[in-house]
Amino acid sequence: MTFRAPLQDFKFVFDHLAGMGDLLQMPAFSAVESDLIEAVLSENARFTEDVVAPTNWDGDQKPPAAQNGVVTVTASFHKAFKAFGEGGWQGLRHPEAWGGQGLPNLLATATNENLFAANMAFSLCPLLTDGVIEALLLAGSDSQKTTYVPALMEGRWTGTMNLTEPQAGSDLSLVSSKAVPQGDGTYRVFGQKIYITYGEHDLAENIIHLVLARTVDAPSGVKGLSLFIVPKYLVADDGSLGQRNDVWCASIEHKLGIHGSPTAVLLYGDDKGEVGKGAVATLVGEENRGLEYMFIMMNAARFAVGVQGIGISERATQQALAYARDRVQSRAVEGSAAAVPIVRHPDVQRMLSTMRALTEATRAVACCAAAAHDLGTQHPEEMVRRFNESIYDYLVPIVKGFSTECSLEVASLGVQTHGGMGFIEETGAAQYYRDARILTIYEGTTAIQANDLVGRKTLRDGGKVALDLSKAMRVTLDELAQAVATATNVHKPGLTVLHQQFELAIDAYESSIHYVLNNTKEDIRSVYTGSVPYLMLAGYVLGGWQMVRSALVCVRESTTTDDRFLANKFATAVFYGAYILPRASMLYTTILHGKVVSEALTHSDLV
Amino acid sequence: MTFRAPLQDFKFVFDHLAGMGDLLQMPAFSAVESDLIEAVLSENARFTEDVVAPTNWDGDQKPPAAQNGVVTVTASFHKAFKAFGEGGWQGLRHPEAWGGQGLPNLLATATNENLFAANMAFSLCPLLTDGVIEALLLAGSDSQKTTYVPALMEGRWTGTMNLTEPQAGSDLSLVSSKAVPQGDGTYRVFGQKIYITYGEHDLAENIIHLVLARTVDAPSGVKGLSLFIVPKYLVADDGSLGQRNDVWCASIEHKLGIHGSPTAVLLYGDDKGEVGKGAVATLVGEENRGLEYMFIMMNAARFAVGVQGIGISERATQQALAYARDRVQSRAVEGSAAAVPIVRHPDVQRMLSTMRALTEATRAVACCAAAAHDLGTQHPEEMVRRFNESIYDYLVPIVKGFSTECSLEVASLGVQTHGGMGFIEETGAAQYYRDARILTIYEGTTAIQANDLVGRKTLRDGGKVALDLSKAMRVTLDELAQAVATATNVHKPGLTVLHQQFELAIDAYESSIHYVLNNTKEDIRSVYTGSVPYLMLAGYVLGGWQMVRSALVCVRESTTTDDRFLANKFATAVFYGAYILPRASMLYTTILHGKVVSEALTHSDLV
Repeated sequence: MTFRAPLQDFKFVFDHLAGMGDLLQMPAFSAVESDLIEAVLSENARFTEDVVAPTNWDGDQKPPAAQNGVVTVTASFHKAFKAFGEGGWQGLRHPEAWGGQGLPNLLATATNENLFAANMAFSLCPLLTDGVIEALLLAGSDSQKTTYVPALMEGRWTGTMNLTEPQAGSDLSLVSSKAVPQGDGTYRVFGQKIYITYGEHDLAENIIHLVLARTVDAPSGVKGLSLFIVPKYLVADDGSLGQRNDVWCASIEHKLGIHGSPTAVLLYGDDKGEVGKGAVATLVGEENRGLEYMFIMMNAARFAVGVQGIGISERATQQALAYARDRVQSRAVEGSAAAVPIVRHPDVQRMLSTMRALTEATRAVACCAAAAHDLGTQHPEEMVRRFNESIYDYLVPIVKGFSTECSLEVASLGVQTHGGMGFIEETGAAQYYRDARILTIYEGTTAIQANDLVGRKTLRDGGKVALDLSKAMRVTLDELAQAVATATNVHKPGLTVLHQQFELAIDAYESSIHYVLNNTKEDIRSVYTGSVPYLMLAGYVLGGWQMVRSALVCVRESTTTDDRFLANKFATAVFYGAYILPRASMLYTTILHGKVVSEALTHSDLV
Repeated sequence: MTFRAPLQDFKFVFDHLAGMGDLLQMPAFSAVESDLIEAVLSENARFTEDVVAPTNWDGDQKPPAAQNGVVTVTASFHKAFKAFGEGGWQGLRHPEAWGGQGLPNLLATATNENLFAANMAFSLCPLLTDGVIEALLLAGSDSQKTTYVPALMEGRWTGTMNLTEPQAGSDLSLVSSKAVPQGDGTYRVFGQKIYITYGEHDLAENIIHLVLARTVDAPSGVKGLSLFIVPKYLVADDGSLGQRNDVWCASIEHKLGIHGSPTAVLLYGDDKGEVGKGAVATLVGEENRGLEYMFIMMNAARFAVGVQGIGISERATQQALAYARDRVQSRAVEGSAAAVPIVRHPDVQRMLSTMRALTEATRAVACCAAAAHDLGTQHPEEMVRRFNESIYDYLVPIVKGFSTECSLEVASLGVQTHGGMGFIEETGAAQYYRDARILTIYEGTTAIQANDLVGRKTLRDGGKVALDLSKAMRVTLDELAQAVATATNVHKPGLTVLHQQFELAIDAYESSIHYVLNNTKEDIRSVYTGSVPYLMLAGYVLGGWQMVRSALVCVRESTTTDDRFLANKFATAVFYGAYILPRASMLYTTILHGKVVSEALTHSDLV
């Protein structure tokens, strides 16, 4: 169950697909040497491989325990968390002004993926803390930033996001937690929040809860939600910790996976603290704009969860591949004197290739999205910023929804590759299968991502960004056609299939966009029946685009197949075209059937 | 987490798809009244719902414990197992001459599915016992049958199958357990067997192990394997139990799912018993024919595991549907005054419809296969028997591979439908996701089933059975075309899509068969690269066939849509056509790409 950070693939994606070189040309990163990128990545590999990865199984088997509101996390997590803080990993992509390192998002995407792969349950603590940092940098006052951000960045404190309540999951309009103003600029918060990741633990001195609640006279629905800071311990002006606040862990959940991560039920205003009844809170930004702030923070969190999917896919793939090389069983299909390692069996190759193809494609898409985010926030020209930010916004629900759905498939194939061993917990493959299962649910289910993709990201701009992307794909398709024409025998058959399937997939994608644009007004239900298929189709074709670009690099860089990495990459791209891209047309067919399905269902009991 | 046996669907499948009426016309079942079928099914529903289902979560949370070779199972399993034995469920399909009830396999398929759905971990004990009964009835001597079968049938004793060794999983040629003849007609067995389901437990007085081992001078490979009976306690001629035999449980596994089922490592010949060193064994049938006997027994076991997949799909679907009706969240997509039960949201409908469609289609295929088995073993005319047995043989790897792969998708969608609740173990949805994960692995992985389907079941007869099936599908397609022509507006759009997609799926199926037939000699690897896609394609089209037949029944039986069951069935069939059948053409595309993929991989490190 060792883990090796996929440095070679990151380098390939940075250099050939996501344009790290272009990012470093921007003034914002003028101080960043390209050597630094590699140095950070290598250091991150050492940290995640040697310090974090060994705690993964430990967290699964010795999960946190809760007693009287006190949560004790897995012992080995303490050392890893201390090293994480000291290494400055939390601040990697954040401004130097607040204690960060001001490095590109693209780089942070890679270091995060490694952290997620090394120990997903552990990584949730930094992931949530990052969301809090993001929200405070965006909407907090200077005093709030000064008080909280550096301590969060240094790993002395951690952060949480408190949205969900028992009656308010995907539908935040139902949030009922109350915030009562005290006349001194502070509030008292009352209510119950559930599914609070690292809501209580003993890793850090303090926990900074960001809480969605309603002020007393707030409008109903999502427009009456405000965002509050509720620290576990009140913080004095000099940064020292004061009274225990009135926020309490009632219990932690017994979950299918990510056992190492304590998921808390938090009670606000249970009157057990030193501050009297009600959790002392300060407002972030303006009243009733809480959801708006949350959404910006959620964008980052959703993107990060997508990258968690890629991390778990990478880890599951590494483990399955190692097992398949080691396990000798049955003769080769062409005949062989003795039994061979199972990696030689065609169906094991199909499974491993599927795992590789989905992992590498989702990684490439996520990295390109991260680069768009860097351009969108840091490029000197506004036009370029706006264009790239719109691309990033379109890609976030896809990175989240598609990468995590793929991770379920990959983790399941990982178990399957092990045969009976895969079902034995000590093998480790089963943990990825269990851990991954939350990824398509938290930070918005795949259906929520698909609603976002259809509603806010496709309909609102009349399909502009989506069709811009397909136009760009057609440019790559033309390059591919030229490559087919001049290819050697080694590459020609693979490139030919790739071209054929990429073209079909682009057609399917464009037709789906038009279906969404043309039918929503008249028959919204039939469009939303196909919303998840549309999201998945977009993911497959965007992944295919990056795999085609990768194949073109392979052809250009190596006329022979001596380079093992490039040879693998090319084979994986061909496999993606041959086995994965055909899913796009299939999904388009289902999207077209939205109307007949929703009509048939009106006569059934699913209404 | 209640369970309701799907009696209405069984009745529909019996009456309209699997031809229970025809079976009961055969002399073998002349004593069986059709009332009896319903009475048995009702009684089975009561038993599985009230007695077995409540033990499911209990077994998951309080799994068996092993200490010094003694395994204590979950306490509540004892009562359920006693009731199982007393109810005569073990002997339902077995000959009356040996204590069974001589009822059709088709009926046993339904009662088994209910048992599997109620508690999969519990059901494995009867499932394995059934395999032992089957093997002894097939190859045992009269004395062996007399000694063991009635006690197994009554639930006083249980049975196990001992194939796997650490170095011999899918590849039984590597089995190295030894059997040494003692000169008195008995043998002593030495070796280690792993993954032995219910290999040790305290549910019954005795455990009858069937063990694959090699006699001293046996040839190497699978042709040197013999089958032995090793009882935990030796059995005297009068059936009383004697000395403790030299077979010992070294440990039980810590598994992802089916926690209630003890999976044992068994040591034969560890010299801790009362019989001296070596487990006392008797040979079943002839030496070196062990694998042959095992295969016949395995056919039944593989079929049963397929039905386990259907059972878990049914259970997961019931739970998700109940939750979706109960959980109120977000407004309707068309707009609504308040939040609605999530069953009204299009993507939840898509998930629940997928779950229903796959469950009902796999059930219908399995029941048709079971009926073919009844015809194949009981029909008075040899021609009819042979034809049906060949159909059954073709369908077994599909029922096993396809139904279990579908159950993974269904169980995963079951978790997803619950949102965050699905990840909390106490909800129960996660247990099905964990339990189901073994189904595509044990009794032969999906790849092993696919090898069987390609090699023994398609190539060996030149595709005859496969093409016979597709011919029969085209007859149904013609009926469907006529139904489209005369359909009312309620049915017409759905039938039209169903016709279009069923035709495409049959085309894809036939083309795949021809691809397999035409390419294996020249390029076996490219064919086997697509073996699992071929198996899945066959499953989807066979499932589609039964859903089309179901839709035709719905049209015939109800011109209105008043009947809730028929309306649901029709909607599910339409959904299957619109959303599931398009997978067939997609899989065909991948099958065609076997060559380009296997060529590309030769340059990669997956070799």
